[in-house]
Amino acid sequence: MSTVDERLDGVAFNTDGLVPAIVQQHDTRDVLMMAWMNREALRLTLTTGRAVYWSRSRGELWRKGDTSGHTQRVIGVRVDCDADTVLLEVDQVGAACHTGTRTCFDADGEYTDRDLNPVTGDA
Amino acid sequence: MSTVDERLDGVAFNTDGLVPAIVQQHDTRDVLMMAWMNREALRLTLTTGRAVYWSRSRGELWRKGDTSGHTQRVIGVRVDCDADTVLLEVDQVGAACHTGTRTCFDADGEYTDRDLNPVTGDA
Repeated sequence: MSTVDERLDGVAFNTDGLVPAIVQQHDTRDVLMMAWMNREALRLTLTTGRAVYWSRSRGELWRKGDTSGHTQRVIGVRVDCDADTVLLEVDQVGAACHTGTRTCFDADGEYTDRDLNPVTGDA
Repeated sequence: MSTVDERLDGVAFNTDGLVPAIVQQHDTRDVLMMAWMNREALRLTLTTGRAVYWSRSRGELWRKGDTSGHTQRVIGVRVDCDADTVLLEVDQVGAACHTGTRTCFDADGEYTDRDLNPVTGDA
């Protein structure tokens, strides 16, 4: 069994030292959000069982829920085939999105089947 | 109803002109993969109903399945709260991953609950 440091060595952080983390609710399997992690954020996520991210706008670590109370308990963490993307399975308390919706994909940005069809669309 | 161009104008592509696209199987809700799209890839995805991505390594558009036969029929496309991430619901034919596994997150990169616990871990 490898140490946390050995595991972190296997992750392909990008030139900014970050990996995208896809966050999925473990039971409903809703995709809740996407955020970024640096090595320290991933280490804290792996070792504390609470999801921690890197805020690119604020330039600091943020532990999900510290301000909002909407914590994420980490159930599983995987990396993808080329180790440059992380998938977190979590148990989300309340809203995952800062707008107050359960997921960050609940907004008006949803397209319908019809919109994908160039024949029935208006593009 | 907005045109495809108006919708594309609402997407916050990054400084490289790209957005990350999270790809989810519509029925099992497995997260299959993550890839990148530029404006043209997203336009083609929206207007043809087949998932098209931008290959950062090859510097070209790639329509999923053209080489492997493992196509993705697009069922729904959403953007997140700040419009800088795309969520695709697809119907995946065969393996989503170029390694031949159903998802790109099937590899040895899977961590277990125990590994997240610093008390029982070996870090």
